[in-house]
Amino acid sequence: MDIIKLPEYNIYIGHIQRALRHFVTDRQYSQHLLIADENTATHCLPILAEYLADIPFKVITIPPGEVHKNIQTCEKIWSSLMHNQTDRRALVLNLGGGVIGDMGGFCAGTFKRGIDFIQIPTTLLSQVDASVGGKLGIDFADIKNSIGLFKNPGAVFIDPVFLKTLPKREITSGFAEIIKHCLIADRDQWNSLQLVKNLEQVDWTALIAHSVLIKKQIVESDPFEKGIRKALNFGHTIGHAIESYFLSSKTPLLHGEAIALGMICEAHLSFQRQGLTNQELEQILSFIKTLYPQPIIPRDSFQELIHLMQNDKKNVDKKINFSLIQPIGQVHVNQEAETDEIKASMHYYNSTVN
Amino acid sequence: MDIIKLPEYNIYIGHIQRALRHFVTDRQYSQHLLIADENTATHCLPILAEYLADIPFKVITIPPGEVHKNIQTCEKIWSSLMHNQTDRRALVLNLGGGVIGDMGGFCAGTFKRGIDFIQIPTTLLSQVDASVGGKLGIDFADIKNSIGLFKNPGAVFIDPVFLKTLPKREITSGFAEIIKHCLIADRDQWNSLQLVKNLEQVDWTALIAHSVLIKKQIVESDPFEKGIRKALNFGHTIGHAIESYFLSSKTPLLHGEAIALGMICEAHLSFQRQGLTNQELEQILSFIKTLYPQPIIPRDSFQELIHLMQNDKKNVDKKINFSLIQPIGQVHVNQEAETDEIKASMHYYNSTVN
Repeated sequence: MDIIKLPEYNIYIGHIQRALRHFVTDRQYSQHLLIADENTATHCLPILAEYLADIPFKVITIPPGEVHKNIQTCEKIWSSLMHNQTDRRALVLNLGGGVIGDMGGFCAGTFKRGIDFIQIPTTLLSQVDASVGGKLGIDFADIKNSIGLFKNPGAVFIDPVFLKTLPKREITSGFAEIIKHCLIADRDQWNSLQLVKNLEQVDWTALIAHSVLIKKQIVESDPFEKGIRKALNFGHTIGHAIESYFLSSKTPLLHGEAIALGMICEAHLSFQRQGLTNQELEQILSFIKTLYPQPIIPRDSFQELIHLMQNDKKNVDKKINFSLIQPIGQVHVNQEAETDEIKASMHYYNSTVN
Repeated sequence: MDIIKLPEYNIYIGHIQRALRHFVTDRQYSQHLLIADENTATHCLPILAEYLADIPFKVITIPPGEVHKNIQTCEKIWSSLMHNQTDRRALVLNLGGGVIGDMGGFCAGTFKRGIDFIQIPTTLLSQVDASVGGKLGIDFADIKNSIGLFKNPGAVFIDPVFLKTLPKREITSGFAEIIKHCLIADRDQWNSLQLVKNLEQVDWTALIAHSVLIKKQIVESDPFEKGIRKALNFGHTIGHAIESYFLSSKTPLLHGEAIALGMICEAHLSFQRQGLTNQELEQILSFIKTLYPQPIIPRDSFQELIHLMQNDKKNVDKKINFSLIQPIGQVHVNQEAETDEIKASMHYYNSTVN
């Protein structure tokens, strides 16, 4: 069991049973409400129920997927809490991926002006990404996470046992955030990562703990995303746009898959604008290519993608904001790029697709 | 101009023009979005527009009244913000009573995970009550303020000029909170208050400043409503239930009117359980009776009222929580009362109605 201590809460990584039971019983909550989606209710809840054993809890189940991460689902969750006569001394347990963590946390954080909640992320993406930083929210008017708040959970419990419930593609997708954390902050770990050839033979507890620690250090120095925290945005400006674009296609990409492509494009921007070397760019490209699908980004969609980037909530005055790297392991926030350079980076990516 | 300094923001009371202009221009916001309801847009906005003069702003107007303080109106506000391409460096100005402050603050506090907002309360109630404490929220599933958060505004600007736009009944309603602040915390001011015979001849700047100061001291010692802040709940446990009950009647009460009756009942509870003297009880009764309407609370509705009290979000484990006084000027939080005692207090109130 690894424990990462943040000023306001702890992150437990490994076999979480004992720490979880201790946390829940110690605080003597009036009630325990567990929020799951239909998938985690089927695959993860049996494991968690065994961990909790004699601790009573009620389950609120919602339909799975980003498409339900909206205010209508929040209304269902709030209604269920109300229906269960949940009071301010109750605990919400969010069991699931990023959607459950973001939305369940938002609902708990706003129910009766905020009740305690803990995160039990079950996907690799949410384990390395969503467990630090207190960012909660839902999608609104087609913009991801456009309604939400910053609020820390009571604790985060990360158990690699849940990764066994995931399809391989989900694991690879989540791995993109681990790659990102190395690229922006840890060249040594990046070098070690190059040795990973098979995601089925990995010490997840160690790898997740290392990745969470990087994120923790960045978030702690900038809790409200005023400056350096934007470092975590590497790959995400273009990646989010790619994700939105392919969402309505026949072959939607998982979040991490889109971010992986976004990292190739933004590594190219880093090459164009920051002097990242060609050798480093190609090293990033070749590692990502061994792991991720590589759809062509249609040339006639470039303008639409740029428009999506302009609507990103991190922008100020409608300029497109990037976090770029140079060299690998160092990041430079608040970089702007010209439309032509952004298009060139997508051309570059397309040109590398076989 | 009185300035009350809180750790995170200032409250300006008096002729606010200069302070408001200074605040807004000094921070160089990317945009100014003013939220008003149809009433304040008509009666208060012209005054504020004159104050702002050359400072550009856009207006978001919503329908007036508590009945619109819901998630559907929030969606309209969020959509308007989105439509105006509001970014994270924008400022929201909430111009109106408690509904606008609570809901506009909630919308700003959750838009893109939180943008700056200032409160410009225009009713006496919101000037003395809603301007301190950072409580934001909306009604949900018929429960008042059941969804919301704690978040401080950038500043609060209280200008008595707006009181001239209000009907007399609204002024009297808001005055109930001033009475409450004296009853729970300031016996001397209570004694002075007894001399007020006509609410049209009052130095509002001084009276509001004094009342806000009392609330500030209580809120500062308990920002998240874990303990002593419940003091502010005096009159509200029964008062909220009375307000909800009369909401669907032919003669609904204004918030402060219901709270005034709640204070009579809870003074009687204080007499039954805390040893408030009969003389003090009658002093409270007689002062409130000179100012407020006194509808009979139908005896056959007592059980329904008790049920409403049980659903109050401040309750833990479904027990009904009171803040009681003894003597006038001192408050005792986390007091419970038996159902029979609560009913007796309502009987007492009814028996005093001529």
